[in-house]
Amino acid sequence: MARSISEIQSFQPVARTLMGPGPSDIYPAVLQALSRPTVGHLDPLFIAMMDEVKQLLQYAFQTDNPFTLAISAPGSAGMEACFVNLVEPGEKVIVCRNGVFGDRMRENVERCGATAVMVDDAWGAPVSPEKVEAALKAHPDASTLAFVHAETSTGACSDAQTLARLAREHGCLTIVDAVTSLGGVPLKVDEWQLDAVYSGSQKCLSCVPGLSPVTFSPRAVAKMQSRTHKVQSWFLDQSLVLGYWSGEGKRSYHHTAPVNSLYALHESLLRLYQEGLEHAWQRHQDMHQHLKAGLDELGITFVVDQPYRLPQLNAVTIPDGVDDAAVRQHLLTTYNLEIGAGLGDLAGKAWRIGLMGYGARHENVALCLKALENALR
Amino acid sequence: MARSISEIQSFQPVARTLMGPGPSDIYPAVLQALSRPTVGHLDPLFIAMMDEVKQLLQYAFQTDNPFTLAISAPGSAGMEACFVNLVEPGEKVIVCRNGVFGDRMRENVERCGATAVMVDDAWGAPVSPEKVEAALKAHPDASTLAFVHAETSTGACSDAQTLARLAREHGCLTIVDAVTSLGGVPLKVDEWQLDAVYSGSQKCLSCVPGLSPVTFSPRAVAKMQSRTHKVQSWFLDQSLVLGYWSGEGKRSYHHTAPVNSLYALHESLLRLYQEGLEHAWQRHQDMHQHLKAGLDELGITFVVDQPYRLPQLNAVTIPDGVDDAAVRQHLLTTYNLEIGAGLGDLAGKAWRIGLMGYGARHENVALCLKALENALR
Repeated sequence: MARSISEIQSFQPVARTLMGPGPSDIYPAVLQALSRPTVGHLDPLFIAMMDEVKQLLQYAFQTDNPFTLAISAPGSAGMEACFVNLVEPGEKVIVCRNGVFGDRMRENVERCGATAVMVDDAWGAPVSPEKVEAALKAHPDASTLAFVHAETSTGACSDAQTLARLAREHGCLTIVDAVTSLGGVPLKVDEWQLDAVYSGSQKCLSCVPGLSPVTFSPRAVAKMQSRTHKVQSWFLDQSLVLGYWSGEGKRSYHHTAPVNSLYALHESLLRLYQEGLEHAWQRHQDMHQHLKAGLDELGITFVVDQPYRLPQLNAVTIPDGVDDAAVRQHLLTTYNLEIGAGLGDLAGKAWRIGLMGYGARHENVALCLKALENALR
Repeated sequence: MARSISEIQSFQPVARTLMGPGPSDIYPAVLQALSRPTVGHLDPLFIAMMDEVKQLLQYAFQTDNPFTLAISAPGSAGMEACFVNLVEPGEKVIVCRNGVFGDRMRENVERCGATAVMVDDAWGAPVSPEKVEAALKAHPDASTLAFVHAETSTGACSDAQTLARLAREHGCLTIVDAVTSLGGVPLKVDEWQLDAVYSGSQKCLSCVPGLSPVTFSPRAVAKMQSRTHKVQSWFLDQSLVLGYWSGEGKRSYHHTAPVNSLYALHESLLRLYQEGLEHAWQRHQDMHQHLKAGLDELGITFVVDQPYRLPQLNAVTIPDGVDDAAVRQHLLTTYNLEIGAGLGDLAGKAWRIGLMGYGARHENVALCLKALENALR
């Protein structure tokens, strides 16, 4: 029962250890950056910081794309930004579905007035390049291939490089969900020639939730520029947003940027740059191995086969006879430790243990293993 | 010229006094709340806080609408949320345009596949109820009347109560832009029977930018429920968002909420509640009078006629022979004081001086007047 409005007080959250599918543990320096004094969204100081955010995002994405920025809303809006800008009504899009987010892509395609051709793989399996190639051959009129690089709902990593090559061979652009991959596993936008890629601030970047980094290749930009229909979303129309994020001279007002959240993103990207991508990828892998060793001892097995496992998102099968909700509740109330529930097909069957960004540390692995051991006793 | 990526350091903004059109000065307690430890977006502690945000928003909007929440993106997305959920393709919407944001409403209507019937008034004038009534009579097939309560681009306040009454008399729903009015001037959603109202966090609430409070009347909800087309935006589809913000039992995942920004909104709304709406309205009016008295002495006049002036957004005419950009630059570099440039038709002709929320204080008025006096000398 909600309390009376007159009883409401300032919110004082408990400090949790966040080992779910995100938000992940935030770098302390990122929380400090977040609360620095707000400046105007057209202040020259802020514009200069945005330029740095773009440079740091280009590093994180491994791209020289000039059209690289952060959408002022969560990853779901980043997904929608890619679809509404690249897909026109009447087009056909091949959508790979091996978890929740492939299905969300289908929703986006259909709401653009386009047709989604679904390529289904099992939850926990990667996207099958063979099935994708067959679909591309069967649908030579498709304009776009859309797939999830790192499926947050299952912990499976798909071969983005191969999928993008197949798309190019069949004249398709690619829309790639890198929400959970960015910063956690190799993601090389230019080398792999990905066209439209979106991510989220609250996963392996260890920034607060609410922003969606995106990058568009020159091929994607050309497609946007040759559109015959207006983008159905004014807020997400990237041709308008770019007037604020770019330009040698004057920046034009589009919407009021989330100033403080961008301070936080700047700081988290700077941390990633200073650590170095290769080091960050290795750290995620190392912590995953430590977690796996401990889970093996507890007899807990993975949903995803070894070659396709994301180190940063460990979906594990809930042992027989164990009360899913009771265990998560115990971890939360006794240890202030959050792990993720299963989503969609995996609801009640799996837990999702995140080792993302700042959360990929020995102390988090040790806490999680010991707390799970006690909870399952 | 951007510096090399290896030279980038943590961003340390200068403390500015924000007297533009928003973001406004942030309450120090709001910045503190912002940087509290992040918890999960489905954490019971967070869900309870969201319920409090809803209660506090209902107070701020003066409504009992159960469908009251904060969109996880800026006010422009709040605007779009109202249009894409309430307007279906083929409908006719009467849009009042007396500044930038009425024209943005037109963009939204057209991108929904609907027809906008424009009712134009001069920049700086309020929306004319007579013209609106004539348009409603001339277009009996219109479904919706859309107007801006407080035009941020001009500082004019329109008579939302009368406009909403006219709309009802002609069987139209209302979509109302209250971005700059909420917390600054009377806004009574239930008493005035407004149907869909959106605002922004960064104006008279003195919260950080990035969130858009919205409220929908039962009439608006009924319209949403009787839609024959899917909402074109997945991210802004309120029937899906409500599954996360509401429900007696389980909350369903839609997108990852901007957790820390919502801490900040909670704190800013609590401040407004504790001050009391009537007191906040009076404080904005009092500070406006102080500012006006000082501007009179400087010979600076208002764009908007007295009865329609917003106390929180003072659009003033740049005196003849004064270099717009040079003065604003001087205020920013010498006094760390931001005032707003003119927008659209008023670019180069007006300044916009905000007295919003925490910014509506004697010290801000005094700083602004003395700095302007020196700059114009």
